[in-house]
Amino acid sequence: MPSTVAGPEIERLIQLLARLPGLGPRSARRAALHLIRKRESLLQPLAEAMRLAEERIVVCAVCGNIDTRDPCTICADPVRDSSTIVVVETVGDLWALERAGAAHARYHVLGGILSPLDGVGPADLAIAPLVARVAAGGISEIILAVNATVDGQTTAHYVTDRLADYAVKVTKLAHGVPVGGELDYLDDGTIAAAMRQRTTF
Amino acid sequence: MPSTVAGPEIERLIQLLARLPGLGPRSARRAALHLIRKRESLLQPLAEAMRLAEERIVVCAVCGNIDTRDPCTICADPVRDSSTIVVVETVGDLWALERAGAAHARYHVLGGILSPLDGVGPADLAIAPLVARVAAGGISEIILAVNATVDGQTTAHYVTDRLADYAVKVTKLAHGVPVGGELDYLDDGTIAAAMRQRTTF
Repeated sequence: MPSTVAGPEIERLIQLLARLPGLGPRSARRAALHLIRKRESLLQPLAEAMRLAEERIVVCAVCGNIDTRDPCTICADPVRDSSTIVVVETVGDLWALERAGAAHARYHVLGGILSPLDGVGPADLAIAPLVARVAAGGISEIILAVNATVDGQTTAHYVTDRLADYAVKVTKLAHGVPVGGELDYLDDGTIAAAMRQRTTF
Repeated sequence: MPSTVAGPEIERLIQLLARLPGLGPRSARRAALHLIRKRESLLQPLAEAMRLAEERIVVCAVCGNIDTRDPCTICADPVRDSSTIVVVETVGDLWALERAGAAHARYHVLGGILSPLDGVGPADLAIAPLVARVAAGGISEIILAVNATVDGQTTAHYVTDRLADYAVKVTKLAHGVPVGGELDYLDDGTIAAAMRQRTTF
């Protein structure tokens, strides 16, 4: 049964909106109504922004970042430290690191994470291109900035193994208490890791 | 500071997505990345669906519903009871009533609710067109299907006053225990209303 009585056009708009992460069927209906109500100020500009994104966004052939240029702005930046590559799972993680101003280096987007259960193997990720970048020389450190999940750590181990033959230092993000975090609300694993990796005050 | 390093196109896409109800800045970034990743299967179809919606969706001049035809499918339906008008705040409420199969009548969308605090007065709502529909004759019952909020009830009272001069029965949705609801989790007002409006078993 259709979720509206407004005809196939709105029905299809709702179905497509519902496929966005964070929107379910109910919020997709609300979003569709909101778009139609804000036809001039939101529906038209958003459709145009999506058209522009579709037309102009490219994937950087060097690092897998998305941008309107290839190589991307980060890869083309002459000021950044080009001897360090920060390895991330997704472009979203790259954005998070950039927002934090955490690294002034290059990146490498794996495009996912090793996950045998989901059928994601090494060939599905941009691991070979990473090895090729390291093999090409000039890289002194690889920072593995993968998520602190089991699959993330598996991926980190695998990437480290693949880089074992090269004279490159492989590091990973520290585990510990989040800034502003309260011990009482933290899981045991994080507390134990923060204790093990304690630093001088 | 921009939330990405991916250039103004993506920045704008994220900003517009963040204006959809249910999406904040973070989920808008995830939605934008998802769209770019699913370029063929989601970005293009969604942009096209939005273009079609913009081109074809019209507001029904009779009842305020949205549809691709004017009068809308409901107003044009010869089988529906045309002597009863269900008054709703929004098109979303109309859809909800239709999904429930609650009424086989006509509708009237007020386009909002009286809210002095938000500066919404009677002139901002489609109240005069409702009175005009009643004045034109042939209407025997107005069902006020507004939300059970203070503003909703204020609006219901106001509409009832405006219709006082016409020989039309004005009814409202029953208050009571939601189907499947547990008394222990219900607010006192609902329980009291359900008790007052109890029916024969």
